[in-house]
Amino acid sequence: MALIVQKYGGSSVADADHIRNVARRITRAREAGNDVVVVVSAMGDTTDDLISLAQQLVERPDEREMDVLLSTGEIVSSTLLAMTLKSMECSALSLTGLQAGIHTDGIYSKAHITGIEPLRVVEELKKGNVVIVAGFQGVNPNMDTTTLGRGGSDTTAVALAISLGADVCEIYTDVEGVYSADPRVVTEAVKLSKIGYEEMLELATYGAKVMAPRAVELGQVYDMPILVASSSSAAPGTLICKEASMELRNKVSGIAHDTNVAKITVWAVPNHPGMAREIFVPLARANVSVDTIVQNVGGDDVTDVTFTVARTDVVKAMSIVEPVARTIGAARVTADETLGKVSIIGTGMQNTPGYAARMFNALAESNINIELITTSEIRITCIVSESRLTDAVRALHRAFDVEFRQSE
Amino acid sequence: MALIVQKYGGSSVADADHIRNVARRITRAREAGNDVVVVVSAMGDTTDDLISLAQQLVERPDEREMDVLLSTGEIVSSTLLAMTLKSMECSALSLTGLQAGIHTDGIYSKAHITGIEPLRVVEELKKGNVVIVAGFQGVNPNMDTTTLGRGGSDTTAVALAISLGADVCEIYTDVEGVYSADPRVVTEAVKLSKIGYEEMLELATYGAKVMAPRAVELGQVYDMPILVASSSSAAPGTLICKEASMELRNKVSGIAHDTNVAKITVWAVPNHPGMAREIFVPLARANVSVDTIVQNVGGDDVTDVTFTVARTDVVKAMSIVEPVARTIGAARVTADETLGKVSIIGTGMQNTPGYAARMFNALAESNINIELITTSEIRITCIVSESRLTDAVRALHRAFDVEFRQSE
Repeated sequence: MALIVQKYGGSSVADADHIRNVARRITRAREAGNDVVVVVSAMGDTTDDLISLAQQLVERPDEREMDVLLSTGEIVSSTLLAMTLKSMECSALSLTGLQAGIHTDGIYSKAHITGIEPLRVVEELKKGNVVIVAGFQGVNPNMDTTTLGRGGSDTTAVALAISLGADVCEIYTDVEGVYSADPRVVTEAVKLSKIGYEEMLELATYGAKVMAPRAVELGQVYDMPILVASSSSAAPGTLICKEASMELRNKVSGIAHDTNVAKITVWAVPNHPGMAREIFVPLARANVSVDTIVQNVGGDDVTDVTFTVARTDVVKAMSIVEPVARTIGAARVTADETLGKVSIIGTGMQNTPGYAARMFNALAESNINIELITTSEIRITCIVSESRLTDAVRALHRAFDVEFRQSE
Repeated sequence: MALIVQKYGGSSVADADHIRNVARRITRAREAGNDVVVVVSAMGDTTDDLISLAQQLVERPDEREMDVLLSTGEIVSSTLLAMTLKSMECSALSLTGLQAGIHTDGIYSKAHITGIEPLRVVEELKKGNVVIVAGFQGVNPNMDTTTLGRGGSDTTAVALAISLGADVCEIYTDVEGVYSADPRVVTEAVKLSKIGYEEMLELATYGAKVMAPRAVELGQVYDMPILVASSSSAAPGTLICKEASMELRNKVSGIAHDTNVAKITVWAVPNHPGMAREIFVPLARANVSVDTIVQNVGGDDVTDVTFTVARTDVVKAMSIVEPVARTIGAARVTADETLGKVSIIGTGMQNTPGYAARMFNALAESNINIELITTSEIRITCIVSESRLTDAVRALHRAFDVEFRQSE
């Protein structure tokens, strides 16, 4: 008998049929002899509906009131799920974030969990109840409701699992698990049976669609195994956990890609000390995150400085860099927004130069030009033309296909 | 400077325009230098929508979960009103029933308030906030949400006013106050400037449309003045309070009427002791409330027993009385559902036989036959044919018109 925390997202409880389906899954976990705590999101578009209700009245609604308003969405779905379970002869009750003892800081709309005192949850589990907790919410030290922002219900689930000492935290969503690449791009993408926390985090945009990165980080810190699976199928899903064995380390886990990338080049920068500082300190002050920086040392006294930013930050970045370029005597500044980013990810690549070579080779064979290269301990990323991005993802998936299969 | 508790019903906060209107009324009360606590109901049809959402899933939803579900309706409207006030530069915040310290017993769906600890309300008033309290809800000793049932928000408002020592509790609704008769029946009906608690309670069905009788009773016990007024007009409304002076006592306050009445007659009951018990004990056991009982002593050894019940209880009552009638040897049982009830109400009528005479005279002059008569200390009621009920209300209103005018 295990203690399981399950989380169901908004699309999994969008209407009566979906709620009944979720209730049946919970009763099966219960009948298998497990103690079950469930975290639910608000039904379907509820949160958006509540936001537009508020905006009909006030352009910029007060954040304290907004948090109380939005928290009702999860309370509604938690009660509906609890009453459905009871009607199926499965003892259950709903608890609000307050009742579940979820304490947060006072930052409305994106509060952080500061601690959980799940006394009531434990008490109700002892009585034999399935405990349904309204996700996405907690209370600040003043006992006012706060919401946890993006990915809030995932975070509620993982944090509750940790504080209860659960055996596993199961995140049920509308995908079957984590794939070796985005299945909409690579039809041969393979569902991974396991992935490490860091690798999951490196999947970046694609990974974030599957589950909230802050919840993965929380799982990593406390070593809580997280199962990501579909709420509408019996397929086994993907377990996010510490790397299982040495044997499994020497591999690539997945291919990630992202189009939210742009390249800015400052041409013919006078090549003497302090130039990098002149350009990048103002960007940092303006909260523009710079990803990769490449300096092409030319033959003369000038150099070209190239860096990437999120495409959404290009206008802001250009407005900062252009006056700086004039001041330092650079020739001109150009921006290229027609780029994409493709990465191979895997804990096993560390200190294994062969992976970079295989990646560059695969791209070259497909005649894809690499604009920039950046690496982390478990990731190698190439910036390529956006028009070739999908080709790049597919080429890399083919090149490392054997490794994905090993992980199954 | 006064402390005022205001309550706004569901129709007064049904949409954005109505909420803005309510917010403007509150700012005016605030600008006049008052401390203001506001109790709100759920917007328009919200409660019905939540009920049907639950019933899509479960035929008879669990009452604990239903109460948590329904309580979200008032939380939503309280936050919307608070953020609207803040956007008008009026400091405000919303509190749930729990936060406002509203403690109840554990009877889900129709909980009773056992006590209020309004510490947070007092604290926020001291900070200069308008405090918006979600009506209709409280928490039981286990800190689980309960709802107060029919008229819950009126009860929240009066109870909060009492616990805070407010100067007045103002109930804003879609009528302009309490009238001398139902204005839809008697066009000349006069809005009363004042009415006693008991008189308000005797207005029964008509009065209950204006405000919840249980809230009036609560006001009576603690002597809290209650102003009933329209949320969409500046008209002064009706003050429900202790009778103001001896001078005002000698009068009729209003005419009430009701069509939910039926007459059952048991014919030719053998006239010996115990017969009444044989008929009425089984009815009481079946929870059928009997209003008036008349026994017409005939010349022989038999008597006819007539009584009234709510029209909605006729089928149940007949199914109980018919076998009893056979057992005790009565001739037959008949039911007449084509009846109505009309009453004159006024604290001043006590020990003043002239009022009954004037009532019977007025009905006789309009050629309206009286089927049954029943009285309480402050009420004289006649049962008449339903087809003549409106005529009866109008005739009585004309007969006592001078007295209503005095109360203005």
